[in-house]
Amino acid sequence: SVDRTPFHTEYVQAKTRDNPRLKSEIRLLKRFMKAQKVYGAEEKTRGFSGYLVEVLTIHYGSFLKVLEAAKDWSVGYALDPENLWGDEKSLKYYFTKSAIIVVDPVDKNRNMGAAVSRQKLAEFIIASREFLENPSIEFFFPPKKQGRPVEELKRLLGVRGTYFIAFKFSHPQLNENLLYSQLRKTMASIEKSFEDREFRVFRPSFWSNEADTSVILFEMTVHELPKIKHHPGPPVNSEPVHQERFHEKYEKDGPYILEGRWVVDTERKNTRVRQVAEKLEKTRDGFGKNLRKARVEILEGDEIFSIEHADFLMHLDGIL
Amino acid sequence: SVDRTPFHTEYVQAKTRDNPRLKSEIRLLKRFMKAQKVYGAEEKTRGFSGYLVEVLTIHYGSFLKVLEAAKDWSVGYALDPENLWGDEKSLKYYFTKSAIIVVDPVDKNRNMGAAVSRQKLAEFIIASREFLENPSIEFFFPPKKQGRPVEELKRLLGVRGTYFIAFKFSHPQLNENLLYSQLRKTMASIEKSFEDREFRVFRPSFWSNEADTSVILFEMTVHELPKIKHHPGPPVNSEPVHQERFHEKYEKDGPYILEGRWVVDTERKNTRVRQVAEKLEKTRDGFGKNLRKARVEILEGDEIFSIEHADFLMHLDGIL
Repeated sequence: SVDRTPFHTEYVQAKTRDNPRLKSEIRLLKRFMKAQKVYGAEEKTRGFSGYLVEVLTIHYGSFLKVLEAAKDWSVGYALDPENLWGDEKSLKYYFTKSAIIVVDPVDKNRNMGAAVSRQKLAEFIIASREFLENPSIEFFFPPKKQGRPVEELKRLLGVRGTYFIAFKFSHPQLNENLLYSQLRKTMASIEKSFEDREFRVFRPSFWSNEADTSVILFEMTVHELPKIKHHPGPPVNSEPVHQERFHEKYEKDGPYILEGRWVVDTERKNTRVRQVAEKLEKTRDGFGKNLRKARVEILEGDEIFSIEHADFLMHLDGIL
Repeated sequence: SVDRTPFHTEYVQAKTRDNPRLKSEIRLLKRFMKAQKVYGAEEKTRGFSGYLVEVLTIHYGSFLKVLEAAKDWSVGYALDPENLWGDEKSLKYYFTKSAIIVVDPVDKNRNMGAAVSRQKLAEFIIASREFLENPSIEFFFPPKKQGRPVEELKRLLGVRGTYFIAFKFSHPQLNENLLYSQLRKTMASIEKSFEDREFRVFRPSFWSNEADTSVILFEMTVHELPKIKHHPGPPVNSEPVHQERFHEKYEKDGPYILEGRWVVDTERKNTRVRQVAEKLEKTRDGFGKNLRKARVEILEGDEIFSIEHADFLMHLDGIL
């Protein structure tokens, strides 16, 4: 990967030369992590890089010993394999906001765990515990999931009673890191636009064929709202002058006090989440740079099955 | 009122004997407060008691001077008319949680403002400001509001697009303070039951004919939810042992990580708020003592118009 310098290669080679068995232990851990979907530091996964796996195996000595250590990790765990800082407690003040800190053996100012998300760290910890308790070959080679037929997926979607809305992007081939980072950012931004307007997202997700089609999908708890909403005013314990100003401005709407603040009832412009989605499709507010330029189609309910990529249906299958 | 002792009467008499004009100033302030619906310390109003009005007028010297002072009050305002504490700043540490503190001139340990709610204080402050800016007789004698016809109310209810659900209580005559305090408490408890289950209340209110019929009314933003909900598990930064336990228990439901915590999708028992209301009607969980024993009828949508008391329709009129 781009982040691996000749110093890194040299470090790993020196260590594995001393102890050749390490090479197969490293392969084992990589296979395990791949199967558990936590392998890879790129944007798509935000998991463990190849170099990080190598350093962990070298430090702990074997695949099993890494797992035995990992089972007691938690968010914020710090490791300094070559003891370059002399004090692991202070690391968290230097490498802030990281889910896990593993000091690079050849560069004390670099955290090899910087790319690992809290989610992937948690998934690896749980997988380690489960493997140690009940080891089996399936942790390395999970049984290929059989996709359920489309008709069954449609039925399940109906049973859940939720509402699905999707942004389908058609775009030229994009750098994969760029693509996934923009999908993540755009998903978060759209979710915020929905929630700010009192719609409620049940589960957001994204998918891409990594060529020309990407989807940001929202399963919604609340997708329809009444024609009115609260326009919130100042709290009753704020400066009286603010309260009076609100009163004057909205006198005709009949201000009243709700949970300690003045409010008036006002018209809600968008009563369906689809209207908000269509507005965003026009303005592209909060969209990643390349997704701004993509062609966007908004799909709701059963319409999402018009995205016929088998891999997207597997994505949907995992949600339903 | 029950709270007024001979010492209070004596204090007010002595002060008004010195300055007879005060009596009409007091009457003016009471009339103003009644019209602004902030007069009365009882549970129904939670406003200013008669004695408090008298002490305020005596202290400031006239109706107008009370309003001129009140326009700059805010929540937490403290007044010690006879300077019994010598230090008004420390009062808020003694009389905590009060919207306003007015030390009783004949008992330094009593706050005459204890019954005043933040809401009624705010309403009085705003009314004072508005009167001073634009004085008129209507502040003392507000024009009698003409109720709109039932058909118009039904139309408005439809236009709002909200959903109304009411608990109609049939009960024997109750002490008024008891009745209103139980209506308030029961309303808050039902609202919490709704919101805990992800339903959303737009505006709660209560009404009573103070004889045999009371109503707790909820206008809802969200009254229907999907067949599934999240069952939340431990956060990803909690002890791994908790995370693993959740995983083992819900393995078949496919745990996943959402906003930093493990969740599984699980069936929602009550998809409509009416089902929750009916459950509460049976269990009476969180109901005031006397309302537990009352006969309860649950009404939704247009059914609330079967409550034909003219005063209830005025209550509804004020909401729509």
